[in-house]
Amino acid sequence: MAYEAFTEQSVVDHVRQLGLLEEGIAECEEIGDGNLNLVFRIRQGETSLIVKQALPYAKVVGESWPLTLDRSWIEQLALREFSKVVPQFVPDVLGSDRELAYTILEDLSAFEIVRTGFLKGESYPNLARHVGTFLGETLFATSDYANGPLVKKQIEKEYYNPELCDITEKLIFTDPYRDADSNQIEAALRPDVEQLWSDLALKIEVTKLKVGFVTKHEALLHGDLHTGSIFATRQETKIIDPEFAFYGPFGFDIGQIIAHLVFSTYAHPLKRFERFTEVLTVWETFEKTFRTRFTQAAEPFNTVGFVDELLPSILSDAIGYAGCELIRRTVGLAGVADLETLPDDLRIERKRHALELGTRLIKQRHQIQSIDQLIPVLSEVRV
Amino acid sequence: MAYEAFTEQSVVDHVRQLGLLEEGIAECEEIGDGNLNLVFRIRQGETSLIVKQALPYAKVVGESWPLTLDRSWIEQLALREFSKVVPQFVPDVLGSDRELAYTILEDLSAFEIVRTGFLKGESYPNLARHVGTFLGETLFATSDYANGPLVKKQIEKEYYNPELCDITEKLIFTDPYRDADSNQIEAALRPDVEQLWSDLALKIEVTKLKVGFVTKHEALLHGDLHTGSIFATRQETKIIDPEFAFYGPFGFDIGQIIAHLVFSTYAHPLKRFERFTEVLTVWETFEKTFRTRFTQAAEPFNTVGFVDELLPSILSDAIGYAGCELIRRTVGLAGVADLETLPDDLRIERKRHALELGTRLIKQRHQIQSIDQLIPVLSEVRV
Repeated sequence: MAYEAFTEQSVVDHVRQLGLLEEGIAECEEIGDGNLNLVFRIRQGETSLIVKQALPYAKVVGESWPLTLDRSWIEQLALREFSKVVPQFVPDVLGSDRELAYTILEDLSAFEIVRTGFLKGESYPNLARHVGTFLGETLFATSDYANGPLVKKQIEKEYYNPELCDITEKLIFTDPYRDADSNQIEAALRPDVEQLWSDLALKIEVTKLKVGFVTKHEALLHGDLHTGSIFATRQETKIIDPEFAFYGPFGFDIGQIIAHLVFSTYAHPLKRFERFTEVLTVWETFEKTFRTRFTQAAEPFNTVGFVDELLPSILSDAIGYAGCELIRRTVGLAGVADLETLPDDLRIERKRHALELGTRLIKQRHQIQSIDQLIPVLSEVRV
Repeated sequence: MAYEAFTEQSVVDHVRQLGLLEEGIAECEEIGDGNLNLVFRIRQGETSLIVKQALPYAKVVGESWPLTLDRSWIEQLALREFSKVVPQFVPDVLGSDRELAYTILEDLSAFEIVRTGFLKGESYPNLARHVGTFLGETLFATSDYANGPLVKKQIEKEYYNPELCDITEKLIFTDPYRDADSNQIEAALRPDVEQLWSDLALKIEVTKLKVGFVTKHEALLHGDLHTGSIFATRQETKIIDPEFAFYGPFGFDIGQIIAHLVFSTYAHPLKRFERFTEVLTVWETFEKTFRTRFTQAAEPFNTVGFVDELLPSILSDAIGYAGCELIRRTVGLAGVADLETLPDDLRIERKRHALELGTRLIKQRHQIQSIDQLIPVLSEVRV
């Protein structure tokens, strides 16, 4: 069936045809922000489900540009792949269609977006452990180490996602380091940003991280794992929206989530040790999970001692990618509410901190040899 | 058309239907060794051409196992890709067919396989410069640095070559480091090989190189660039047989050819400085070509100073892969004539050297900071 954007009526008809609704009345509401996707919630009796349909364009800051519908297919593929090892941490996929570019998902109304919850001062006691487990299980399971390169290549070939990777490459690794139109730089911060642009040593390190992003096909990544891509309750955690999924470096998702835990501290400085403990827990849970799976795996990669060298190199990468994320969310196109909701003086001060910390993480990522050495570096950013 | 192996008669009929032959008599001879491919030479008047057809199995040491016909398609794709930047260094592709798994190539009868020529004591004054140029141009052109990640990913997605990569992974990086059935270890060499198997530091480094082979998607590689994959005259050079082509680390092909230049010295020790000079020339020509293209390329990877850090890391990889190749050809399934044609005592002595040099290159690849430092390491292997 050729692509057509659903309406509240047509989506109900379609879902009913699939046998997911009974005859009779069903309530339907479009609850998305309409920038990238339509999101419909359909309710009928005890049934409640979400239909997420990609739009063939992206709207950001009033601009609109075409964007591949393939991202919807990639998203549901990734959710299904993740659910093979951690079904508890992703929403159930109830249906999908490549042409119509939709995915039908279980409704997670009982959950809250973690960024929103953090802004309200909520805590999620299991979040860090769950995210660390998610990362350890999915990154390992989709790597060469789990079932060998033949199986990995079979998974990998489904994740040809050039357009969305291109967005990440530009917005994270390129535009923040030059005077690009896409940047959103506050006037008071401009001198700091110009210093960034003149820091050649930093730019070389960012280029290396960018090269790692485009060349290191280590595992299937979520690709956009910030606190807005995680639904949580105090008990449960669900990772959503892997439209940017692709084969990339182990450290990328880990770095992204570390950066966003740090961003949360800018809105709630008193929560900073809770957030830093979560950084520690995410890494330690990831490391433990990954190491366990690695050790259980068959030859031929299971050379004694190899994983002891692999894990620190993943941490270095993660620290570097955390630094890139701190910088790009501060000067680039997509700001974070943790900063943008602050009053002027605090916001500028904390954005400056984000730039300083980001720079430091990128440059010192090889010197920070363990997660225990990372936490003090994060803590020095007094806000 | 469904796959069927050609006969000398059917291949002539087929090629005539394609319009590549006139009516009338054409001579045809099967000149391959029949282990992996059929190779037909067809002559008619001034016309002489080669039809190379993949067989659906591989025969090695009397064993036969199924092997994908896709390798024929990959081979002609790679030849066509290489010819976009260095048409002078690959044979002309006159036709190809995916189902029938053949490629029609210009006949290079006037050329000699470099390994054969070297064994006879021949010299190819342009060989090293040509191979270095081939590597610099093709590795750059197919990388992210040439036209950006979007264009690179478009090329990359054609080179899904899991089965042939699997052969390389097993035969180069895995089997030589354990008591595998595929190894061919001379009795006199067994203690040396067992020492290799007990060298944990070496095995960790080999695992890292293997991981690089499967995860670093830097450029389109030939994948099997030894002196048997190069046709030459004193003037010209043609790279053939890229059936193993895939996206891998920049340093792999470079390392392979370095190893095989070293192997040549075992049969002709007096030629060793000629061969080592070729090692130097291959690298320096590669480096100069790659650097020039990199510097000419557009942003966003063209960060001043980045390429100065990239090139030494490529050299490290190349040295490591050279070491792996030295070892695997000495203990693994596929020996080289440069060693196998030697009398017993010399052969054992030089195989021992190959193992020692290979081990040293793998372990010391990060300490050898320039090609000038590599040559003395190679020269110390007095044979």
